[in-house]
Amino acid sequence: MTEQELKRLITEVVSSLGGDMTLDLALTLTEKVKAKAKEMGVNAVVAVSNSAGNPVTVQCMDDSYIASYDVALNKAYTVVALKMPTTTLKELATPGGSLYGIQFTNGGKIVIFGGGVPLYNKAGKIIGGLGVSGGSEGQDTALAEFGGEVFKALIK
Amino acid sequence: MTEQELKRLITEVVSSLGGDMTLDLALTLTEKVKAKAKEMGVNAVVAVSNSAGNPVTVQCMDDSYIASYDVALNKAYTVVALKMPTTTLKELATPGGSLYGIQFTNGGKIVIFGGGVPLYNKAGKIIGGLGVSGGSEGQDTALAEFGGEVFKALIK
Amino acid sequence: MTEQELKRLITEVVSSLGGDMTLDLALTLTEKVKAKAKEMGVNAVVAVSNSAGNPVTVQCMDDSYIASYDVALNKAYTVVALKMPTTTLKELATPGGSLYGIQFTNGGKIVIFGGGVPLYNKAGKIIGGLGVSGGSEGQDTALAEFGGEVFKALIK
Amino acid sequence: MTEQELKRLITEVVSSLGGDMTLDLALTLTEKVKAKAKEMGVNAVVAVSNSAGNPVTVQCMDDSYIASYDVALNKAYTVVALKMPTTTLKELATPGGSLYGIQFTNGGKIVIFGGGVPLYNKAGKIIGGLGVSGGSEGQDTALAEFGGEVFKALIK
Repeated sequence: MTEQELKRLITEVVSSLGGDMTLDLALTLTEKVKAKAKEMGVNAVVAVSNSAGNPVTVQCMDDSYIASYDVALNKAYTVVALKMPTTTLKELATPGGSLYGIQFTNGGKIVIFGGGVPLYNKAGKIIGGLGVSGGSEGQDTALAEFGGEVFKALIK
Repeated sequence: MTEQELKRLITEVVSSLGGDMTLDLALTLTEKVKAKAKEMGVNAVVAVSNSAGNPVTVQCMDDSYIASYDVALNKAYTVVALKMPTTTLKELATPGGSLYGIQFTNGGKIVIFGGGVPLYNKAGKIIGGLGVSGGSEGQDTALAEFGGEVFKALIK
Repeated sequence: MTEQELKRLITEVVSSLGGDMTLDLALTLTEKVKAKAKEMGVNAVVAVSNSAGNPVTVQCMDDSYIASYDVALNKAYTVVALKMPTTTLKELATPGGSLYGIQFTNGGKIVIFGGGVPLYNKAGKIIGGLGVSGGSEGQDTALAEFGGEVFKALIK
Repeated sequence: MTEQELKRLITEVVSSLGGDMTLDLALTLTEKVKAKAKEMGVNAVVAVSNSAGNPVTVQCMDDSYIASYDVALNKAYTVVALKMPTTTLKELATPGGSLYGIQFTNGGKIVIFGGGVPLYNKAGKIIGGLGVSGGSEGQDTALAEFGGEVFKALIK
């Protein structure tokens, strides 16, 4: 086996294991989510974070809510920071739930309502998060879940 | 009609459709809300924001609560940032509501009880917000709604 | 001396000693400073605080700097909190000065350039602060000092 | 005058009156700045704000500094909030300068080194800001100024 062939093989194996969020991936995802939002009549803010929870891109559709910037960004953070969709966290964080109070302990960065999903690589590892804000909770949740499916197809 | 005359006419029409909050408008509105508050025996803080949610004027009636400054200012921000009266948000943000948790995610600037209303221009676009704090929630809500009506009359 | 006469006498003495900032006084002062600013061609933000450093009124002239809101408000706070004009503090807070570092220790509320003056009652006690922001430092300083003189005349 | 001609005239007048930042404009600008950054070998974060200083889009090129997100976003805010490039502010905010201290008074949102420029509409009004962070100060400044020129051409 030549060194050339070996390099190609290793690259292939490592790639199959995963890789982290890239700006290219994040922008492609964002375009699809914005197109869906437009179709649904929602002026959304769409945020994508990487595996560290740091933002990769945020885009505010014209006439979206001013408050949606923080909400979308924090949803993208929350799903990475707690490794679950914000709809799951929602139940845990209601008064009486096992995580009630989590919304007060992280500098106001934990969002506990729908619109955020983790994004996985081929190996099933979380490599980023998607946060959507701008519609009703149902619309934001639908857009985030749509984005999660889109991402699954993207990294195949 | 000359092009010159036409331009003047168009400028006039466009201006009549819209425009943003001005300090003059905000001060006139504030005077009326303060007069009403005095009539009701409330020492209120009255805040007016512009279409970006930034403050235009805040006034603290003598002997008003120290805490009311932040509350009034944040109400004026909230109604622009989320495009709804704080009484509407109140329902959505209670435990079990679709936006429960919004009060923790925007740097503590989202107020979820009565006393804030959006202010509209002739074209029906939100050009600012009014936040009132100092009385009971019912009194603050009544004062804010009174202010909303006053503003409607002002921009006619 | 009747009880009636005694009451009148005490009221007179106490009043001569001072009284605190009122909204009426603050608004009258603000109007005069805004008129002067307009004359000078400055779109200013004018803030007045009370003896506790809490805001009494803030007004943002049309097209003033967004950043000026925080600056004017903090100037009005600084002059009460440290009992000196911000021009005096400016010298003390430069690298090498006796108060260098004060600008980092109070939650970012201490302003160390011109445009803020304490406001005194008849008895020479500080009962509030005036903060002006929007022009060059020289213009802000001139406006604040003008406001200080206006206030002196007002409370006579 | 035909309806066609009238429409053209109205569009012209309204355009001359202004228009604000749109997501489309912001994304087109961002693409060009990223291309230039790539050419220069800089992994930049590029942020665009609207006339209120609120973010419209932020994009982090792969392997850019984590700290650059806040810096780029705050540069885009600063140039709108103070209506000047950050290179101009740099001089005013050094010890001894007339605005020394401004960097501490606005919640840490004022950036005082190169890499931020205001963006103007046809009428010469500031409708947004561009913030670039990721290279040396010279590189960030060059990229921001390049972006300013690109934007000028875009809105023609």
